[in-house]
Amino acid sequence: MGDDATADDNAVGVVSLVGSGPGDPELLTVKARRLLDDADVVLHDKLPGPEVLDTIPDEKREDVGKRAGGEWTPQEYTNHRLVELARAGNHVVRLKGGDPFVFGRGGEEMEHLASEGIPFEVVPGITSAVGGPGVAGIPVTHRDHASSVSFVTGHEDPTKTESAVEWDALAATGGTIVVLMGVGKLPEYTAALRAAGMDPDTPVALVERATWPGMTVATGTLDDIVAVRDAEGINPPAITVIGEVAATRKRVLEFLRDRPDGDTGATDA
Amino acid sequence: MGDDATADDNAVGVVSLVGSGPGDPELLTVKARRLLDDADVVLHDKLPGPEVLDTIPDEKREDVGKRAGGEWTPQEYTNHRLVELARAGNHVVRLKGGDPFVFGRGGEEMEHLASEGIPFEVVPGITSAVGGPGVAGIPVTHRDHASSVSFVTGHEDPTKTESAVEWDALAATGGTIVVLMGVGKLPEYTAALRAAGMDPDTPVALVERATWPGMTVATGTLDDIVAVRDAEGINPPAITVIGEVAATRKRVLEFLRDRPDGDTGATDA
Ligand SMILES: C[S@@+](CC[C@H](N)C(=O)[O-])C[C@H]1O[C@@H](n2cnc3c(N)ncnc32)[C@H](O)[C@@H]1O
Ligand SMILES: C[S@@+](CC[C@H](N)C(=O)[O-])C[C@H]1O[C@@H](n2cnc3c(N)ncnc32)[C@H](O)[C@@H]1O
Repeated sequence: MGDDATADDNAVGVVSLVGSGPGDPELLTVKARRLLDDADVVLHDKLPGPEVLDTIPDEKREDVGKRAGGEWTPQEYTNHRLVELARAGNHVVRLKGGDPFVFGRGGEEMEHLASEGIPFEVVPGITSAVGGPGVAGIPVTHRDHASSVSFVTGHEDPTKTESAVEWDALAATGGTIVVLMGVGKLPEYTAALRAAGMDPDTPVALVERATWPGMTVATGTLDDIVAVRDAEGINPPAITVIGEVAATRKRVLEFLRDRPDGDTGATDA
Repeated sequence: MGDDATADDNAVGVVSLVGSGPGDPELLTVKARRLLDDADVVLHDKLPGPEVLDTIPDEKREDVGKRAGGEWTPQEYTNHRLVELARAGNHVVRLKGGDPFVFGRGGEEMEHLASEGIPFEVVPGITSAVGGPGVAGIPVTHRDHASSVSFVTGHEDPTKTESAVEWDALAATGGTIVVLMGVGKLPEYTAALRAAGMDPDTPVALVERATWPGMTVATGTLDDIVAVRDAEGINPPAITVIGEVAATRKRVLEFLRDRPDGDTGATDA
């Protein structure tokens, strides 16, 4: 592309920041489906899950999850590549697992695009923080149990000194707590919540690979969930749900179906 | 349907608890779209919005938003009707605005179905609490500003004594606060958050009818947002976003598009 083309505003492409939902291709939005089919290039990492990624033609897929030379961090590489592809006139889909703005760094990518003068649109997706528990029969809010729900990251950025997670305050909300990236640090934050005065019998659920093939659900209490995690071998990606709502699954499981044709729900680990 | 039929398990239908997303029909999931097309009956209220409701054939639509005789509350009527239709062998879609489990009383409906022995499935939708801010250029979490996000209801159930919203604790989380059903009580909870020590200059955004025709966004601070609401005539349904992330919109608005064809985003009130 010559100087003329780059100087021509019409030649600049558009970036669609698109959420994939938790992983079931049928939980893509109609718009995400259309954009994946029509885009020139799809930049993604692994979080959208194997089934969604399989629906994208190979020739337009670009995995930026691991692409970073010595020059850039992975995030810098993604930012750079989005701008480069858009400037070359492409319609670029930046596909992110769940929703782009729930611990997805979509905010940073959006600000980078704006700072470089690249037109973009936002296409929300179903966050795993709501949809993961949901398909497992766990409502994140409940009129009788929870008038708030908080999403937090279990894996604090070690380079970050500000905005650390305030487990005391979260415990004091009395609402549901949903932890993302929270498999490894489960011992630390369950201890913090108990130290903050939460009942050790508070129900807890782990939902691994929600809506992916092999989805697994494990349940326990604030007191024993670390042992449950270890016994059942729960691995990332998984959602931790802490609060009375986590006990709902037990009450409804017998009648919960994956599909109307009568298949049963995910296995309980 | 005779005694034989009711005794026959195969004659019982299935209920799909389906989230519609915030209102743009393209933000329905592929699965929601398929179920709306294939279901025998769709029970809904007004929250899915005019454009989504228009895509459902009239003959299968049943508006339960206002249906309640002297006999039942609206929720009791819905619970009753879901069971009645499923027992008659129908595949019933219970369509709820946003996600069924984010202040949608989907949890109660699911528990009622299970208690009556009706098979059901859960089809998550994009909650307006994430998607509403998102399409307005506001990421609910941000690496630099917010390591948690809490969804709360601004309109507490007056019959409820337990699980009242703990505004002090929410302020102390330091994360983003997203209020649903929060237009009317905006003066009360902004005052509560200021009393809890939140900076009066904290950015606040109101996103009205997100992704509906006539979507409107108004921005201000904890200090002046009530005046902004009144001056701009913001009405329900709207999402209130409280936190540093609310200031992102200003920084990206020039390049934010509704669609790749170049239409600009929602009007700012
Ligand atoms: C970097 S965050 C991104 C979250 C994503 N933006 C969303 O809205 O779901 C990654 C974390 O999301 C959660 N996650 C994403 N997809 C998941 C799935 N299908 N099942 C369980 N957890 C999932 C896990 O906690 C994982 O560690
Ligand atoms: C009873 S709650 C149900 C929320 C819904 N289950 C969800 O996940 O979005 C109703 C509130 O949702 C919010 N809401 C729903 N749809 C909206 C939209 N399109 N734009 C703005 N707010 C919306 C408003 O705060 C409204 O008062």
